Amino acid sequence: MRVVIVYEYDGSAFNGSQSQKNGVTVQDTLESALGKLFRAAIRIYPSGRTDAGVSAENQVAHFDAEFTMPPEKIHLALNTLLPPSVRVKKSFLAPEGFHAQFSAVKKTYVYRMYLAEVDRPLKPNATRIDVHANVAKMSREALKVVGEHDFSAFMSTGSKVKDAIRTVFDCHIEQQGDELALLITANGFLYNMVRIIAGTLIEIGCGKHRDMANIIAGRDRKWAGATAPAKGLTLLNVFYREIETANSPHEVAGCPADGRKKP
Amino acid sequence: MRVVIVYEYDGSAFNGSQSQKNGVTVQDTLESALGKLFRAAIRIYPSGRTDAGVSAENQVAHFDAEFTMPPEKIHLALNTLLPPSVRVKKSFLAPEGFHAQFSAVKKTYVYRMYLAEVDRPLKPNATRIDVHANVAKMSREALKVVGEHDFSAFMSTGSKVKDAIRTVFDCHIEQQGDELALLITANGFLYNMVRIIAGTLIEIGCGKHRDMANIIAGRDRKWAGATAPAKGLTLLNVFYREIETANSPHEVAGCPADGRKKP
Repeated sequence: MRVVIVYEYDGSAFNGSQSQKNGVTVQDTLESALGKLFRAAIRIYPSGRTDAGVSAENQVAHFDAEFTMPPEKIHLALNTLLPPSVRVKKSFLAPEGFHAQFSAVKKTYVYRMYLAEVDRPLKPNATRIDVHANVAKMSREALKVVGEHDFSAFMSTGSKVKDAIRTVFDCHIEQQGDELALLITANGFLYNMVRIIAGTLIEIGCGKHRDMANIIAGRDRKWAGATAPAKGLTLLNVFYREIETANSPHEVAGCPADGRKKP
Repeated sequence: MRVVIVYEYDGSAFNGSQSQKNGVTVQDTLESALGKLFRAAIRIYPSGRTDAGVSAENQVAHFDAEFTMPPEKIHLALNTLLPPSVRVKKSFLAPEGFHAQFSAVKKTYVYRMYLAEVDRPLKPNATRIDVHANVAKMSREALKVVGEHDFSAFMSTGSKVKDAIRTVFDCHIEQQGDELALLITANGFLYNMVRIIAGTLIEIGCGKHRDMANIIAGRDRKWAGATAPAKGLTLLNVFYREIETANSPHEVAGCPADGRKKP
């Protein structure tokens, strides 16, 4: 039987430098817990990988296993076998033909920042930026990312993809006091795409005269800014036609019928 | 010379069970860094103590030392000697007669909660409460805490204070999606007062028929709820007449002229 799990994890606990067990990934941790639960080697298929240090609020994965317990109770049993840095929020039987990676039609990432003069211990999953950053300018430039574009400018050099065209349905900054959240929803993301977009917007906010539309049009990594730190990035939601995941109402509005581009 | 420091710390890093160095307190950590910086034994006097596991966004302390560096640069030097779980946000010369504890006129604490079915790894400084909790009822009952009252009902048994009368200037709940913040500002707090108020409101939200006004009037710890976990509690601001601390504009509005009751 194929089971879907939705889970949250704290990337800072899986960041080599801070982890008790260097090199252990979220996937390893989940597979180890599933192995104990079902007494079998079980492989999970997440919607996609997140780098070391990146967090997720609602990551989605599937796995295949034989079991007798009710599928919607599996997450509770799993949580008793997991460290506090990972929690499975729900589990249920996958619909026919469902695949956590290939059935995904869009994803939302958030890149969290805060304006401050010194790092904030209470914001381990956000990146500090200059207290005088021009947030209005960052917000205006963020909107230019929306649309179907060749995002080669925002792809780590050395990545091998045939097609760098992705559709960004939404890209905007929300501010609350000293905290900023860059929210990006797209049908797919290139390697480090969100972190390079965030890094470019941070540089623009700090005074670099750049235009996001020109950077996109240039299709060259060298015109974009530095890759922003992993700690600020969180996978918020993965959207599917067939299932409802946490915080994702059953809507794929704004997503074209042909769905997501191949990665 | 007397110096004032304003600092933030992550209580979860100083919670016995999670700390690398069990038993080390925030105060020890700061005094050790100051000792290295000034090559002398320096004692700090915080506005008050916070229990293991409790965080602070803007704790205030003073210390006396002889030095030649500009006082408003001390925090930058200190931060290079501190673990990432503690950061000093600013430092400056204390005004004549200033004492971080005795000059404080009021403080604001926040008790953070979230509605969820399982614990959230990304909310280490908040307490999970039942997803079906009646937030409207909790909010209504929170308002009844405002005023000058004998708060014996919200004091840990065994505390020895002559006078349990405190003035609560503000007590309300702010909700944002699944997250709740109970904000309390008072001229002083009894031991565990905020955690017992939070614990009582949580029980009321989960269906216990209790009235905060009756509990206060009863002056008996047994009618209040359980003490809520330390991890949800954060000291937000300490207010003084003489100085401006981070996020605390120079206003002590709503605070009576006779200031804060003795602890």
